[in-house]
Amino acid sequence: MTEGPTLGELGEFAVIDAITAGRRHGDAVRVGPGDDAAVLDAPDGRVVASTDMLVQGRHFRLDWSSPEQVGRKAIAQNAADIEAMGAVPTGFLVAFGAPVDTPASAVTALSDGLSAEAARAGASIIGGDLVASPQWTVSVTALGDLAGRPAVLRSGASAGDVVAVAGELGRSGAGYALLDAGAAEPALAALVDRHLVPQPPYGQGARAARAGATAMTDVSDGLIIDLRQLAAASGVGIDLHTARLAADRDALTAAAVALGADPWAWIFGGGEDHALVACFPAAAVLPQGWRLIGAVTAEHDGVTVDGGGWTGRPGWDSFG
Amino acid sequence: MTEGPTLGELGEFAVIDAITAGRRHGDAVRVGPGDDAAVLDAPDGRVVASTDMLVQGRHFRLDWSSPEQVGRKAIAQNAADIEAMGAVPTGFLVAFGAPVDTPASAVTALSDGLSAEAARAGASIIGGDLVASPQWTVSVTALGDLAGRPAVLRSGASAGDVVAVAGELGRSGAGYALLDAGAAEPALAALVDRHLVPQPPYGQGARAARAGATAMTDVSDGLIIDLRQLAAASGVGIDLHTARLAADRDALTAAAVALGADPWAWIFGGGEDHALVACFPAAAVLPQGWRLIGAVTAEHDGVTVDGGGWTGRPGWDSFG
Repeated sequence: MTEGPTLGELGEFAVIDAITAGRRHGDAVRVGPGDDAAVLDAPDGRVVASTDMLVQGRHFRLDWSSPEQVGRKAIAQNAADIEAMGAVPTGFLVAFGAPVDTPASAVTALSDGLSAEAARAGASIIGGDLVASPQWTVSVTALGDLAGRPAVLRSGASAGDVVAVAGELGRSGAGYALLDAGAAEPALAALVDRHLVPQPPYGQGARAARAGATAMTDVSDGLIIDLRQLAAASGVGIDLHTARLAADRDALTAAAVALGADPWAWIFGGGEDHALVACFPAAAVLPQGWRLIGAVTAEHDGVTVDGGGWTGRPGWDSFG
Repeated sequence: MTEGPTLGELGEFAVIDAITAGRRHGDAVRVGPGDDAAVLDAPDGRVVASTDMLVQGRHFRLDWSSPEQVGRKAIAQNAADIEAMGAVPTGFLVAFGAPVDTPASAVTALSDGLSAEAARAGASIIGGDLVASPQWTVSVTALGDLAGRPAVLRSGASAGDVVAVAGELGRSGAGYALLDAGAAEPALAALVDRHLVPQPPYGQGARAARAGATAMTDVSDGLIIDLRQLAAASGVGIDLHTARLAADRDALTAAAVALGADPWAWIFGGGEDHALVACFPAAAVLPQGWRLIGAVTAEHDGVTVDGGGWTGRPGWDSFG
């Protein structure tokens, strides 16, 4: 297989020209890539913004992920942060570092993944940077719009609220465990795919906000650890009900049997599914796509499971 | 000297708590660090956005720069991109990667530099990410506001316009050469400081826009290479006049003598000064702080110097 010229052979400007040529931008993009900065509509008069960095060997492996999958994952996890505020993504900026001997075709494939996932999230790549780095490093900033609504913070939950989730839980953790074990059963490939490219429930953040969500976050580090932060910010406790999570457990049973693992460890501590988890007033009608998984309590004892402590790993720490 | 606990010993969340505690935000920051995303005022109804990644060993060296200087440089160069659109910076997001054994105190010092330079630029750090990485990597996204004005693009220059600059030229290139040669004369320390922490002329981007600038960019890769891009985007040529740049040459003479170097190479090809260079209609009154350095011509022959070609290095390529 010929991989074509490298970044070093083509140079920064030629590669940027190649990956930006012919890209279509949404109507919200007044000035796209190619000038000193982009200009993006912010119709609300406020802009929502979040940034995440993915480092090769730490957040992805190029022997597991294709360049396109790396790009899709980087956009998906940042888009989920915008959704978790009750906003909709409007644009993404991508700074990318790679070794000088990286084939330019790999950067084009990464760029294809970035653009495809941005389109799925309803937005465009509006700007970026391309530099030399010892390993691949992808740093994405996502921008979004609240359409006049208040932002849904982590701090708004009250005792008596219900806890609900949109999207899937535990799939990414199971997929990682399968990859790590070298288990390649075709029947389990969908879980691996979910680890390589998470599927946030696009549109559900704004839908939850319109339905009256009092607090929201996305499941990035692990359900328990992410809800601990929400509970601490709100000054409440949260109790999760395993009976309400049976569908997630059932979806993971085959992988758990194959690996001799506990599916609940993936559901509660796996992270990287980028599902949305939110609190709603007990009287609220949950929007379509949301399912009840627990309750907000007055006890300041963090997050419990069926009323008891969770003794497994609660999630991921960047330096753990 | 005790360096205290490392990132790995404290963990991601404790370090983030330590560097965000007590930071003050500007009035434009509705939601600062600590939630899934930040919320920033965008009073114009559009937001200007740019991103740059700095990689240790490529864009800075920790044996040359203090962590605080790295932070200040990262903000300054991104702020200059916002200024170059005729906008004012309103907020910065910073994704930072570092080895697990990095002293947390170094990250605090980096954060101090980020915040101090953001304040100089008139804005705040509104969000970020902290991850493990084999080397220091700082990725900044700058956001800005146009206050109702059109963005000043690279493509708006016309034959007959004048070319003017705000800020200094060649200092960063001279400072780099001094560092690279191990030349440590105290009399030349100011040039080294300029390389380690560029000083964009904050506020001059908006001032140029109000004065009618037709095209603008910042000097990041090198005066010639940056103006070539502007000239190509505008479909014009640019001729620079060395007689108008005598003050820059004079400021570099001592360093040039010390190193046996040509000061014009730093002025025309040095880059990283993050001065602003703009075109104005010939009849415009240049704002205070701007000085005439050349003219826009109808010939599509790129950038010339005193009517002839520039045969030196035109600037920097990320993969060169």
